[in-house]
Amino acid sequence: MRLLFIVPMLAVAVTLATSAQETTSLHLMPWPATIITSQSPPLVIQTSFTVGINNASDPGLRRAVEIFLSDLRRHTGSLPLDFTIGDNSSAQLKVTSEHANKPVQELGEDESYKLEVTSSGAQLNAPTTLGVMRGLQTFLQLVAMAPQGFAVPSVVIEDKPRFPWRGLMIDAGRHFMPVEVIKRNLDGMAAVKMNVFHWHLSENQGFRVESKRFPKLQEMGSDGMYYTQEQVRDVIAYAHDRGIRVIPEFDMPGHSTAWFVGYPDLASGPGPYTIERKWGVFDPAMDPTRESTYKFLDQFIGEMANLFPDQFFHIGGDEVNGKQWDANPKIQDFMRAHGLKNNADLQAYFNTRIQKIVAKHGKTMEGWDEILRPDLPKTIVIQSWRGQQSLADAARQGYRGLLSSGYYLDLMGTAASHYAVDPFADGAANLSDEQKQKILGGEACMWAEYVSPENMDSRIWPRAAAIAERFWSPQNVADINSMYARMEYTSHWLDAYGLTHNANYVPMLERMTNGTDTAALHNLADVVEPVKGYAREGLAKTEATSLTPLNRVIDAARPESLRAREFNQLVDEFLAGKVKPGMEMQIRSTLDRWKDNEIQLEPAAQNSALVQEVMPISHDLSALATAGLQALNYLDRGERAPDTWKTQQIALAQSAIQPRAQLWLMVASPVQKLIQASAGEKPTELAIPKSD
Amino acid sequence: MRLLFIVPMLAVAVTLATSAQETTSLHLMPWPATIITSQSPPLVIQTSFTVGINNASDPGLRRAVEIFLSDLRRHTGSLPLDFTIGDNSSAQLKVTSEHANKPVQELGEDESYKLEVTSSGAQLNAPTTLGVMRGLQTFLQLVAMAPQGFAVPSVVIEDKPRFPWRGLMIDAGRHFMPVEVIKRNLDGMAAVKMNVFHWHLSENQGFRVESKRFPKLQEMGSDGMYYTQEQVRDVIAYAHDRGIRVIPEFDMPGHSTAWFVGYPDLASGPGPYTIERKWGVFDPAMDPTRESTYKFLDQFIGEMANLFPDQFFHIGGDEVNGKQWDANPKIQDFMRAHGLKNNADLQAYFNTRIQKIVAKHGKTMEGWDEILRPDLPKTIVIQSWRGQQSLADAARQGYRGLLSSGYYLDLMGTAASHYAVDPFADGAANLSDEQKQKILGGEACMWAEYVSPENMDSRIWPRAAAIAERFWSPQNVADINSMYARMEYTSHWLDAYGLTHNANYVPMLERMTNGTDTAALHNLADVVEPVKGYAREGLAKTEATSLTPLNRVIDAARPESLRAREFNQLVDEFLAGKVKPGMEMQIRSTLDRWKDNEIQLEPAAQNSALVQEVMPISHDLSALATAGLQALNYLDRGERAPDTWKTQQIALAQSAIQPRAQLWLMVASPVQKLIQASAGEKPTELAIPKSD
Repeated sequence: MRLLFIVPMLAVAVTLATSAQETTSLHLMPWPATIITSQSPPLVIQTSFTVGINNASDPGLRRAVEIFLSDLRRHTGSLPLDFTIGDNSSAQLKVTSEHANKPVQELGEDESYKLEVTSSGAQLNAPTTLGVMRGLQTFLQLVAMAPQGFAVPSVVIEDKPRFPWRGLMIDAGRHFMPVEVIKRNLDGMAAVKMNVFHWHLSENQGFRVESKRFPKLQEMGSDGMYYTQEQVRDVIAYAHDRGIRVIPEFDMPGHSTAWFVGYPDLASGPGPYTIERKWGVFDPAMDPTRESTYKFLDQFIGEMANLFPDQFFHIGGDEVNGKQWDANPKIQDFMRAHGLKNNADLQAYFNTRIQKIVAKHGKTMEGWDEILRPDLPKTIVIQSWRGQQSLADAARQGYRGLLSSGYYLDLMGTAASHYAVDPFADGAANLSDEQKQKILGGEACMWAEYVSPENMDSRIWPRAAAIAERFWSPQNVADINSMYARMEYTSHWLDAYGLTHNANYVPMLERMTNGTDTAALHNLADVVEPVKGYAREGLAKTEATSLTPLNRVIDAARPESLRAREFNQLVDEFLAGKVKPGMEMQIRSTLDRWKDNEIQLEPAAQNSALVQEVMPISHDLSALATAGLQALNYLDRGERAPDTWKTQQIALAQSAIQPRAQLWLMVASPVQKLIQASAGEKPTELAIPKSD
Repeated sequence: MRLLFIVPMLAVAVTLATSAQETTSLHLMPWPATIITSQSPPLVIQTSFTVGINNASDPGLRRAVEIFLSDLRRHTGSLPLDFTIGDNSSAQLKVTSEHANKPVQELGEDESYKLEVTSSGAQLNAPTTLGVMRGLQTFLQLVAMAPQGFAVPSVVIEDKPRFPWRGLMIDAGRHFMPVEVIKRNLDGMAAVKMNVFHWHLSENQGFRVESKRFPKLQEMGSDGMYYTQEQVRDVIAYAHDRGIRVIPEFDMPGHSTAWFVGYPDLASGPGPYTIERKWGVFDPAMDPTRESTYKFLDQFIGEMANLFPDQFFHIGGDEVNGKQWDANPKIQDFMRAHGLKNNADLQAYFNTRIQKIVAKHGKTMEGWDEILRPDLPKTIVIQSWRGQQSLADAARQGYRGLLSSGYYLDLMGTAASHYAVDPFADGAANLSDEQKQKILGGEACMWAEYVSPENMDSRIWPRAAAIAERFWSPQNVADINSMYARMEYTSHWLDAYGLTHNANYVPMLERMTNGTDTAALHNLADVVEPVKGYAREGLAKTEATSLTPLNRVIDAARPESLRAREFNQLVDEFLAGKVKPGMEMQIRSTLDRWKDNEIQLEPAAQNSALVQEVMPISHDLSALATAGLQALNYLDRGERAPDTWKTQQIALAQSAIQPRAQLWLMVASPVQKLIQASAGEKPTELAIPKSD
């Protein structure tokens, strides 16, 4: 059991972590471990607001407060001359850090803090500057417009993370993401208290870091799109200032075609190689049998181990199909000579060699599930895309791990689906406490086949905030409606950091309509979602490559339609008899808008190939809306809808749920419920067809 | 008369510059000198689109095309691997520049170009790479979504600017504007073919450039907010790549308090000085009587003349109140000794000295109206904030000039009001052709008392695009409705460059409502405008300073409410009997929304000081809407509205037009017209109260 911290003299309302839904007026995300709210007046943030720090000689502390003040200005629309760092005695917010941060942030450092706010001032205490950073984000999230101006409610919060490893992986290999994209996502991570940025830096489609030792890696393997070492250092410093570790991943021995363009001798098959333009798992793999491979990797890993200061070094290790190994007689000879029975054995041999190299350069090796073999030392960390069972198996063998299965943002799942995944659940539920200690946390993953710098943020945010809460907050913080309410607020909160998940939505739609009739396309795009999992590929008319523009409705549409979710909830409440004044009007006016939407979208479709492809969905939206309105008419009149009509309309709903233009129309289900109810049937959820 | 260029074989539709309104389906802004459209199929932009250049060894040409391709990707949502620079023989767009650009762009360089587009390819020819840049922007603006995908219509354009000096001034002195703000505005300028960025770099409130010779200028005079010389060079290179000259302004001898913080000896009064926080005209001025002043300025101007390569050097010279001079006995002695009768004479003496220094460092002096005295050489350039008469007077004396009067964006005028101002009109109308040659063009000015990096773009764009058209297009391109239609399109077009005039609007409103009920605040903000001219200061409850947050509705509201303009036009057409189907419904549904808006905004107002201050306007909007709906009822029923009702409602409209929260409610006038019409009276425009 988690102990609840109480400050008796202030507490007029005690809020348990489990009843987060009661306090959605506080927009905290992740929700803190313990919070005590109060009816006392808030602390008003004047332009003369000052923050005092206990240790002016700690540059990390000062920097943390500077960043905080800059964020506070952004969130309040204040100016650079407002808010200052001052003396701890007279400051409105007094910050005390017992210890300065380490030069290189470590796994498991104390991130706890205690924040007390009263109308006369606030006090933030933490054992480390890292804890100060987390507490400052909490303070920031408490700032809201009030009758007095910007203000922070009186509150006592004692907080610490559930897991020490709360990560976000960004794949910059498949589509390159410029430094500004990375930085704004680091801001987003810091805002929701994530602390590991996992940078996937090499892929078949691109090698993305400057190597001075092996310059042909970036010169020939990146199409000119790579991070210079100076940029890498800049990103690492930026992350460090925000309490985020940066772990590079260089995927090997597979996923490595781009390496071979400049260095074909590394490969197991004959060259020459070109940068891969397609998506998928490909044959090229490093040759694990030649000493020259290890000599190269020793030097390369040595260079990168210097560049990236974090203790951990990710070698990937996933998805080697082994075809090049099978086809190479020398490799086959080597396997026989060394008693390696299959490709898994050969990869294990490779990993063992690589682990020694990584260790030699002072780093701890990390890799995907596939690398786990009992001959590797217990220090390594397994990142699981397979699930909790895989993690639990590793933990039982004494290996540390983190969960990414269930957190793949590119698969377009709902926030609720990610939120429901817990590193300690399912296959890991029966671990002993000691074994559970081996599970360090998790990482949300953003794979980049179908994202560009323009729309990647919209695939990460706001859903990653729900995952961040899963990693930070107590396990019993699990109320879905509270999560959605706070996530929606957080989504707009993150706009201030230049994240484009909201900002780019309408401009992307405007591009498709040449700026005309965007309202109609907006209405439609609001209620569709990209198909889930890996279905996009299967439904593609022509195979997508790294040259395919990502400018269609599927690329603009949000992974989760909150509009459809709200409408579905409204219909559920209405049909469950929880009718409130205005509820039916709200349903009707929404349906009215959808009914007329097709006609309004038609002129744009005439002039736009990109609008044209969604017109079948637009047609179904209008048809569904007509059906929904008719169903309401039956319900209002107390008539039972005729069977033939019902049958036709259910068929319409079931047809409308089929993907078109790789999109799902998300309001077929609530309309079906209205139809069913009007025919006197029990409303049932219309399941979206399962896809791979 | 301007000659019309004709290509007979292609021409199926000849469009004169004067009938721009007929071709608003083309979203060109500025409108070209001559354009011939065609019904032939368009040129489709595939991902394999290539641009050929005639001179691969011209780095400026290659860079121009690279920037164009990058912009084309932004505007089509394509990816870095799409579109390439290729061989001129097989390219879809063949670009020929007869001459490379000069290392330092000069006033009056040829910017003409000819662009021919057919379905099979396009040809862009220009005498200079500068002309290529302008033509590439035209090509870009022609790209639109079509049934075939992104495409460019078949067209022949021959184009050149009307004026050689088409500028935008940004005041980075009063509020510092970071480099990224400057860069995105340079992108906007390039998009509308502006070619001079006038960088106002010193003010009482801040000295904004690093001086290595006099480091206390930035160290003590900038609050740490200044451009390093490296950043300046970076901005200049960025501008040069886009065909934009960069002219620095260091305002002297007045507007110079920030200089004196580090170098009090420069001043005419005793120190010490602190950075000014208030707005206005202040007493401190340089001492024009001491040789040490000129010695300092010689070294300083020498340093800056090296840093800024442009031929012109702006010394400001405006608004010296002379109080420090009057109070300084030594200065009074000097004036008597040198026969200087008044402060204007003393400033002329100063200017003459400075002009020699500027000339010594190889530059041509530029300044505001006040510097003009017949003893200065004819080479200098006068920037007029006083008007065409002032320019004409200078031209008659042989001085070159440019117009800024009428183009002050910070005064919140309408686009139409700026568009109507012509450098050759009014006081300059009667100049001879030779004298007119002295008028080089004009500059839009963005003074920065009330702008921050967050909202400055919204004060510049899209209105500056209308001014850019005035400077570039033939004088007879003057149709207001065509201008507004194209400006609105251009406004969204500019979003792609990261300009925030649209992107920051809703987030600023969301901040005021804590993310709730933003629709209602949005409705209200859409129909108000900040008060005009210098009225904001007079209406302020407390004096604004450089510390005052710019986060209120007045700071988010657009300078011109296009929503109100459209509504006003709709009412005018309706009352003029030009009733179309749906028109009355549109008026009624708009009024319905406003009528209910107050109730919807009320909950947000309860929790927000910033919403609370606009509630009186919100109340009036709802009351006006109620009156407007009643007026329509009378009109529909063919009844004449009762006199008492009419009198009350007119009084309401006239009360509603009074500024509150420094805002004007822009829909009082159309509602008054409805009221008048319903009472059988002739509708009259309700003029906004004049302000200074």
